Amino acid sequence: MERDPSPSPRLLLGPGPSMVHPRVLQAMATPLLGHLDPEFLSVLADIRAMLRAVFQTQNDLTLAISGTGTAAMEAALSNLIEPGDPMLACIQGYFGERLAEMGGRYGAQVARLEVPWGEVQDPSAIDASLAARPAKLVTLVHAETSTGALQPEIAEIAAACHRHGALLVLDVVTSLGGLPVEIDAWDVDLAYSAGQKSLSAPPGLSPITVGDRARAAMARRSSSPVVFYFDLQLLGQYWSDRPVYHHTAPISTAFGLRAALRLAVEEGLPARFKRHAANARLLWDGLERLDLPLLVPEPIRLPTLSTPRLPGTFDEAEIRRRLLLEQSIEIAGGFGPLAGKVWRIGLMGESSRSENVQRLLTALEDSMRGAVRRA
Amino acid sequence: MERDPSPSPRLLLGPGPSMVHPRVLQAMATPLLGHLDPEFLSVLADIRAMLRAVFQTQNDLTLAISGTGTAAMEAALSNLIEPGDPMLACIQGYFGERLAEMGGRYGAQVARLEVPWGEVQDPSAIDASLAARPAKLVTLVHAETSTGALQPEIAEIAAACHRHGALLVLDVVTSLGGLPVEIDAWDVDLAYSAGQKSLSAPPGLSPITVGDRARAAMARRSSSPVVFYFDLQLLGQYWSDRPVYHHTAPISTAFGLRAALRLAVEEGLPARFKRHAANARLLWDGLERLDLPLLVPEPIRLPTLSTPRLPGTFDEAEIRRRLLLEQSIEIAGGFGPLAGKVWRIGLMGESSRSENVQRLLTALEDSMRGAVRRA
Repeated sequence: MERDPSPSPRLLLGPGPSMVHPRVLQAMATPLLGHLDPEFLSVLADIRAMLRAVFQTQNDLTLAISGTGTAAMEAALSNLIEPGDPMLACIQGYFGERLAEMGGRYGAQVARLEVPWGEVQDPSAIDASLAARPAKLVTLVHAETSTGALQPEIAEIAAACHRHGALLVLDVVTSLGGLPVEIDAWDVDLAYSAGQKSLSAPPGLSPITVGDRARAAMARRSSSPVVFYFDLQLLGQYWSDRPVYHHTAPISTAFGLRAALRLAVEEGLPARFKRHAANARLLWDGLERLDLPLLVPEPIRLPTLSTPRLPGTFDEAEIRRRLLLEQSIEIAGGFGPLAGKVWRIGLMGESSRSENVQRLLTALEDSMRGAVRRA
Repeated sequence: MERDPSPSPRLLLGPGPSMVHPRVLQAMATPLLGHLDPEFLSVLADIRAMLRAVFQTQNDLTLAISGTGTAAMEAALSNLIEPGDPMLACIQGYFGERLAEMGGRYGAQVARLEVPWGEVQDPSAIDASLAARPAKLVTLVHAETSTGALQPEIAEIAAACHRHGALLVLDVVTSLGGLPVEIDAWDVDLAYSAGQKSLSAPPGLSPITVGDRARAAMARRSSSPVVFYFDLQLLGQYWSDRPVYHHTAPISTAFGLRAALRLAVEEGLPARFKRHAANARLLWDGLERLDLPLLVPEPIRLPTLSTPRLPGTFDEAEIRRRLLLEQSIEIAGGFGPLAGKVWRIGLMGESSRSENVQRLLTALEDSMRGAVRRA
């Protein structure tokens, strides 16, 4: 019988998906269970418990949306927004922009608080913006995958939101599992992520957690959320101890996510964060030696996604193409205002290994030398 | 290191997910590629080509939504409906009802054309309804998973829709890959399915195909569809020969879907349909011998999902529970008006094997004898 060709074994060092542990791949090949089988419901219960651990929350409404990170983003906004609701979108890169666009599609009246790509928000500016114009919700990206910048002072920002009666929706797609994300300590109202970044699960299930304030806001809605598939009230009834059918969960991906979360819990969050920080340091030092200084200054630099600035003396897309096709290493280019100006190098989850950093640095040095020679 | 327990090896004979071929499970364990890797884009191209084959269509806009069947249903409606649009919802079971509910959430003015659960629509009734009240779109379920009824005369219904300027949206979740679905020959405007039914892929990617009339209607929208994640214009740009980033596709599930489609194409649609029909016949004859006559009369009876009527002399939920826990066979109960009155037995894709039918019939006979003895 004809077989599909095996893909090349890639070293995935882009903005996601990240490398997946063999135990997780093996879990993906598990024969299926029905979505209401008690054995499958115990898989969901395991996922809920471990998601609470990695989100560092006690939130009861903690589950995974059946889709990729963008689906979790939709779930966050579609459940909170009713047409006409005022929203403050903090924008410091592409994903903050995407939240603003989505909010508008759901009928929110979106005010924008923008800083240049690569920078982060000042809590006092968010406070001042809400003082001038209250909002039902504030959207903010913790780890901006388009720039490599890490938003600090989340607890201060959450306090400012609550002072003005707003909910804080935090995108932790590129931070969860790779650096501290403390939903309860920071008092974040709703946060979401994706499986395929620092948790190193295959994409297709995306964690979300909802606190009491946000649940109360959902309960006060005058109409059902527009998207049945993302309706968190119904999803919470399925992801419960007495499950009610809503949709067929992605069974195999749930096996994979459970295995990936188990690995994270076994490693322990402090050790995991330390590993991500140490390998990021190795990468940054190596990039500096290659005359590729980092775009983002260190206090706000993400360990999971690094953005070296490019000198403009070589064809960066050609080097990435050769890295992929000749060395089987994936990194990504910049986009929007950073197109051609930075690379985006991910060291997330299983990808964050010192041997991977070394292999990339060697390959980059070779490729850049070749590129200069040809130039 | 701690490992998660292996699930019990189930024989999945419910309404989905169905059994998955070992080649497909193996594909699920393939190391990941990036979602913009040329090798992954060729996986998507393979999926598109094979989806056109199973949908029996030339539609260019044919792809898979990153979610389960309900997500594809959302994609269909969210792209076609603008608030205030008139919609005619044909309802003959739970999934027709769900389409009506979703349409309402998107702001459609929904008229309902209902027949009792287990029956199907008369094309002339749809024609008359549209003559009395035109609609922008008509929603119809080809294979109603809640009842086991197969809607015939789709071509006649499509013609009636077009005569009155309406688009026909057809749910082929439980038919695609198991019985004839002829999108172009029937002139259906939009159809969607799910991977985990008669295609026997793991859930998480859901096929959809959009014809020219529906694309023109999308192009005439005065506003963007409310759900960015399901925006078919943007999805079509990603699933293209010159892909533009939209979201991170579920990579592993795409490997699985490609392998499952390859199996379907290798078997050939006529042989596949014949196999489903033959095994359904075996099941029906066996059920009749057990005094479990079928709810749906044969001309409109689905080969993929059978609904034996229950005599009411035993505890049907207890028998299903014992089938699952003692024999590791999953079948499903009825719900809504059919709760406690029927079982729902799926013979879809890899589940449609004569040995599976025999094993189920033997197990049912044993369980029912035990149940009567205890009663």
